[in-house]
Amino acid sequence: MSDFPSRQTDDAAWMRRALALAEGALYRTSPNPRVGCVIVRDGQVLGEGATQPAGGPHAEVCALRDAQARGHALAGATVYVTLEPCSHHGRTPPCVDALVAAAPARVVVAMGDPNPRVNGQGLARLRAAGIAVTAGVCLDEALALNLGFVARMSRGTPWLWAKMAASLDGRAALHNGRSQWITGAAARADGHHWRARSCAVLTGIGTVLADDPRMDVRHVQTARQPRKIVLDSRLRMPADARMLDGTETWIFAAVRDEAKAAALAARNATVVCLPGADGRVDLPAVMQWLGRRDINEIHAEAGPQLTGALLQAGCVDELLVYLAPMLLGDARAMASLPRLDDLAQARRFVFADVQRVGEDLRARAQDAARLAQARSAAQPVPRI
Amino acid sequence: MSDFPSRQTDDAAWMRRALALAEGALYRTSPNPRVGCVIVRDGQVLGEGATQPAGGPHAEVCALRDAQARGHALAGATVYVTLEPCSHHGRTPPCVDALVAAAPARVVVAMGDPNPRVNGQGLARLRAAGIAVTAGVCLDEALALNLGFVARMSRGTPWLWAKMAASLDGRAALHNGRSQWITGAAARADGHHWRARSCAVLTGIGTVLADDPRMDVRHVQTARQPRKIVLDSRLRMPADARMLDGTETWIFAAVRDEAKAAALAARNATVVCLPGADGRVDLPAVMQWLGRRDINEIHAEAGPQLTGALLQAGCVDELLVYLAPMLLGDARAMASLPRLDDLAQARRFVFADVQRVGEDLRARAQDAARLAQARSAAQPVPRI
Repeated sequence: MSDFPSRQTDDAAWMRRALALAEGALYRTSPNPRVGCVIVRDGQVLGEGATQPAGGPHAEVCALRDAQARGHALAGATVYVTLEPCSHHGRTPPCVDALVAAAPARVVVAMGDPNPRVNGQGLARLRAAGIAVTAGVCLDEALALNLGFVARMSRGTPWLWAKMAASLDGRAALHNGRSQWITGAAARADGHHWRARSCAVLTGIGTVLADDPRMDVRHVQTARQPRKIVLDSRLRMPADARMLDGTETWIFAAVRDEAKAAALAARNATVVCLPGADGRVDLPAVMQWLGRRDINEIHAEAGPQLTGALLQAGCVDELLVYLAPMLLGDARAMASLPRLDDLAQARRFVFADVQRVGEDLRARAQDAARLAQARSAAQPVPRI
Repeated sequence: MSDFPSRQTDDAAWMRRALALAEGALYRTSPNPRVGCVIVRDGQVLGEGATQPAGGPHAEVCALRDAQARGHALAGATVYVTLEPCSHHGRTPPCVDALVAAAPARVVVAMGDPNPRVNGQGLARLRAAGIAVTAGVCLDEALALNLGFVARMSRGTPWLWAKMAASLDGRAALHNGRSQWITGAAARADGHHWRARSCAVLTGIGTVLADDPRMDVRHVQTARQPRKIVLDSRLRMPADARMLDGTETWIFAAVRDEAKAAALAARNATVVCLPGADGRVDLPAVMQWLGRRDINEIHAEAGPQLTGALLQAGCVDELLVYLAPMLLGDARAMASLPRLDDLAQARRFVFADVQRVGEDLRARAQDAARLAQARSAAQPVPRI
């Protein structure tokens, strides 16, 4: 009998351990992808590691160092890594060089690296060095950890999820604007988890002027705070806004005002003028700009107007919706969208995950075509 | 060491088997409760059964007959039954008499029978006959199978769930009324499961005139079709409406029209005039009337106007909501409810169950106070 089924099962089990390590790095590696690595021989872990903050070692190098520190050579070992090892000099030397030097018997990867400077070359160089390679183990789970990195590498723009909180009948606030609190403390803390994993938290000037929010991560522990983004067509941002404290803020406007920009610069904010044809900020241009600045994932937490505008501009890849078990009736919508005459015109998503969070429910829904596009970009090269 | 923890675990395990039998009878026992019974000795099943259609034997008698048919006497056996055995002559003789005659060592029940003709007397008579009794094992699971029976017995009115289907932003139809299809085939089939378990399916004349629905059970197998109820204040029901085919329809009106009523009577429909102060049907009076006619569970599947009216009249105990992963924006609400000025005025529910159904999600949310009231009524007597 062949040992192949058992080897497949083992590969998936070890890869899940590597994925758990990658998940442990969820808040800290931006703009690098989250990667985990486990080195195994005869069922024994020789070393393991996960990507360190940008500029620090990648997961493979951490795991190799761990194995070395424990006194293990890698002859006959299998290296499980959730992303194709890099083959280029970035801020750190290529992981492929380190792996080839360590000479394990086999490398198993979950997904290919869509970075055009890698994209199959990592796996090719391992094979050329006589190391057996298996690719595509737990690809979907690995992709879920790095959708933003894949989106930026393959299409040039970040992966954006629009966070909304509403009643079960889709109302985000009463007619008078009251919305504190529709969803409960657990849902709000869960929302901060999604802020923490993002590269940048995006909101609109309407929310800033109405609520003066901080837009930082508070309800979960994190060593890294995401950047902040404000869409502010008429550049009304107050220099004393609370969200200007902490990490840098990027303010996108459709008008120029050098004096205002200088005042905001003194508060660690950069004003970027990207006007669109309608006199408002050009949202797709913002996404392009952010992609060039290494932003992988955007957590958009805005009012119904901006959320609706992002949806209409095609900038939303995923919905992150919290619904409370109550009905509010005649109240404000969660996203302002135009009237449709035909259901075929509706933008359809696919549920990725539905679960209870405290007293509320959380539904994540993704654009199916964009997920398929990302999955295709994450297929190991040569594509099977 | 005591065997008590192990006995508790065993009791729950056997009771879950009895609950599964009761669940198998979900569509057929109305207006009787769904009950399952398993008779066990030394880890061996001697007999088991579930409630038969009304007029047929109850679960305990089925299980006793099963044990007898297999040649087992009940000395030393334990009887697991999901509801306190009845102690009164209804359409069948009291189950307690049959149990006392069979003389098992012990009877374990999940919930008490809130029927005022039983309500503790079943357990008392077993104890008086020298049979050990344990009560309250898996009470919540048993209650979930018979919330309607408990509601009718304890407060005189059925348990009503309002079924709604909408987009993720709570829109049940486009501005032009188009709603086919927002949710998918799996959600629609699941909706028929809830129709099938109900005693009656309720809708409004607006839905009848717009869609001419059949309101019967088609997408799941059932030997029993629920009754049908139409709320029709001005008695506009067409005598050729498709929903008048099949089981009897009760039409509640706020006006009298003997000729119309006679024409509908020829179609197996009964018109009941229950006008309220506002010239519309008195909804709470309808619930009282239905309670007196042995209706335990009502599946309300109506448009936003009637669903909103039922909510405002306090007739809704539970929400059964299907949400599709799409946003419809400026479209019709799932329930028409008045504008609130303060979130404290919102009617809050508690999620009982949230899961994916096909491409959609299903959220069940219950009125917490009414669930607590039903739970209290289902506590075995004497209350612990």
